[in-house]
Order: sequence, then structure tokens, then C-alpha cells
Amino acid sequence: MKKAVVLLSGGIDSATAAAMAKHTGYALYALTIDYNQRHRAELAAAKRVAQFLAVEQHIEQKLDLRAFGGSALTSDIAVPKDRTGAAMAIGIPITYVPARNTIFLSLALGWAEVLGGADIIIGVNALDYSGYPDCRPDFIAAFKAMAMQATKAGVEGTWALNIQTPLIALTKAEIIATGTKLGVDYSMTVSCYDPTPDGTACGHCDSCMLRRKGFNEAGVPDPTIYV
Amino acid sequence: MKKAVVLLSGGIDSATAAAMAKHTGYALYALTIDYNQRHRAELAAAKRVAQFLAVEQHIEQKLDLRAFGGSALTSDIAVPKDRTGAAMAIGIPITYVPARNTIFLSLALGWAEVLGGADIIIGVNALDYSGYPDCRPDFIAAFKAMAMQATKAGVEGTWALNIQTPLIALTKAEIIATGTKLGVDYSMTVSCYDPTPDGTACGHCDSCMLRRKGFNEAGVPDPTIYV
Repeated sequence: MKKAVVLLSGGIDSATAAAMAKHTGYALYALTIDYNQRHRAELAAAKRVAQFLAVEQHIEQKLDLRAFGGSALTSDIAVPKDRTGAAMAIGIPITYVPARNTIFLSLALGWAEVLGGADIIIGVNALDYSGYPDCRPDFIAAFKAMAMQATKAGVEGTWALNIQTPLIALTKAEIIATGTKLGVDYSMTVSCYDPTPDGTACGHCDSCMLRRKGFNEAGVPDPTIYV
Repeated sequence: MKKAVVLLSGGIDSATAAAMAKHTGYALYALTIDYNQRHRAELAAAKRVAQFLAVEQHIEQKLDLRAFGGSALTSDIAVPKDRTGAAMAIGIPITYVPARNTIFLSLALGWAEVLGGADIIIGVNALDYSGYPDCRPDFIAAFKAMAMQATKAGVEGTWALNIQTPLIALTKAEIIATGTKLGVDYSMTVSCYDPTPDGTACGHCDSCMLRRKGFNEAGVPDPTIYV
């Protein structure tokens, strides 16, 4: 069985990407990063998803990105709410965490090499997303080129790293429809950037709004409890 | 004053690169990674060097690369000793830590963007080194290209990341001579991959051997206490 390191955040996208990978026959090695994020409720969600998918191994890496700050998700900057239309069009929002996917993919890269040249699966998508630069195909391609210069197996020519982005061209509704067909129970997942202390979703951050819209357009009941 | 994030391991190379950067007028932001490495003595060395150089800020990030393993520095694999000549020529040794510099540079990248587009300084060198792929100019160039796709400031065109590798073409002796001229006290630094529990250098790993040879060729007294 081909191995894959899958970045598992606890949200809809990574749960779906992991379920798709499992469906195609991968042995899954799940990697979750506790980066001292505001929405720590997603860490418990990632554990639930990893268990549901019966992954071979699940590593939760602790890494304090709050020490750097610079994002609404890693500092006391307020999470923007109820952004629509013009507000969404102004560019990359303050929830962007500098170099987050670069850091996460780098960790996945290290583990993938140790596992003997595993594939990497990341649930980025560039349609119903927050405009983050590190969710785009150009970034993924540049990361792969870098990885082949960075690693022993890459420079020795024994590894052509395969970074799979199965959701990159799907809408949130298509993602939810795909996961639902594969039996993913989205009540396990958490999307909210700014949940209450008990983990209840705010319903108004970009991530909640994309989630609600996705369920609505997919015609799938939204299992989320909002404030 | 231009800001620079400098990766500070506690060894000769990063101490010298940081001292060179300070000498040219940078405000230094030192980043050290506690990756649960075998040679944890280098973490205290990094603190000494950061204090000596009066850096603006020193962040020590904890990250458990031992959870991935795959290297003599992050698992119970023995550190090779007394390698010379033919043994050194067989390629990338088992002390290689998969994706280590990719991970470290990714963290530096995140902090550099938060700091408003700081330069990054890394003391890699590709002459008197252990053959690691992520110490080569090709890797650094690929990382930079990736970083410009990864970051908000990169894709918005407001940041042309400058990754400085001031030691890349220097021998260990030249590095030591340069640092000595700048007043670096190398007794602060630690190179050994396999020190005793009290931090005394083994004298026989690749890193000790390169260090000894460097001091010898530079004609600078080696302040290291070996077993």
C-alpha cells in the first residue's frame, strides 16, 4: 500500500481530502499542527477524523506560531466577521498566517522522507477560500521544486515527491458532496476561526460563512451548531 | 536599521554568520529550534551567542522532530565516528535530518514576514560540511522562489526576500578566521553531534572533526574541551 502523509486540520477540506485518499487505497499518516491557534477546537476534531479514518499513525506537532504573531489566528487581532462582496474582494485577509502552509508542508516533507518517500496530501482549494497565497497551485508547484533540492532522496534522484491537492479546483459544495458520498460525517469537523470557549462556531467568520454556504449549495444538512 | 531573522543553532557557523550580519548593521532577530535533537547542549550555546550579540529578540521554538525520527540526531541510530577520506565520500550521512533546513527556513520566513519583510540569514556552507542537500546554493535559490509564492508580501510584490548565506563559499578555517576578527568567542559555541550528558564534545563525530580541522587550519587555538 502506498503511504501518504496527510495534513489534517480538523476542518471539512482536510477530512475530505483524507477520505478521498483512503478511498483510493493509501495508508494514511496524519499530521496535525497545534500552532497555538485561536481555534484550538479543531485539534480535537482532527483526532476524531483520524480515528474515523483509521489512520496508521497520527502525529500532533506542537509549534508556537503565536510567538511570531502577525495574524488574527495567532494574536489578539480580532477575526473579521460577516464579510461579503466588496469586503471579500480587498485581498488577503488578516486571518492569513505568514508561511503557515510552507511550515506545515515542510514538516510533512520531513516525515514523508522518513517514511521512505510517501506522497503528501493537502486539502487546499483555490475557489471557495480566503485568498491565502499558500493555497494556490503555483505555490504547490514551487514547494515541490524546492523539496527536490532539499531532501536526500530528492537530490539522489530516488524520489519524485507527489503532492496531491485533490480539492484544488472544487467548490466547497462539491467538496461536501464528495465527502458525503464517501461517508464522511462532517459533525466531526470544525471550521470556525473564532469559536466560543466551549467550541461552538461563531457563524460569522469567513470560515463559518464558507461552510454554511457550502452545505446550503450542496443540499446537505449542516450539522454545525452555531452560536 | 534593516531587520534580519538569523537562524542560530549554537554552532560556529551560525554564530559567525550572525556576527557578520551585526557588523554590517542589521538588527538581529535570532531563531533557535529545539527539535529534540541529540545534541541539546547547542541550545544553551545559542542563548549565549544571542546574548553576546545583543540581539533584539531571541525565540526558541520547540518542535519534536524525534516524533518523525529517521536521523542519528533525532533517533537512537548511532552517530558515525572518525569518518575520513573514503568514508566521507559515500554521500549524505545518517546525521542528515530530513527537511531540517526547509523546516527551519519556513519558520524564519513566517517571522520575517511578520517583521515587515526582514532578511533571513543562515550559516550554511557547502565546502567543509557534511554533504547535506539543504546546505547548497541550489536549495537556497529554490526556497526563495517558493517563498515568493507562499507569502502575502511575496505575491503582492512588496517583498523580494533576501536570504543571505555569507558562509556558503568559505572553508571552516576561513569562517573561524572571519569570526575571530569580529571578536566572536568560540568557547560559547557547541558543534558536537554526540556530546556526553554534561555537554563535553566527543571529538570524533563529523562535526567535531570539521571543527578541530578548522581551528587547526585557521591557526586559532581551539577552545573546545573534548572527551
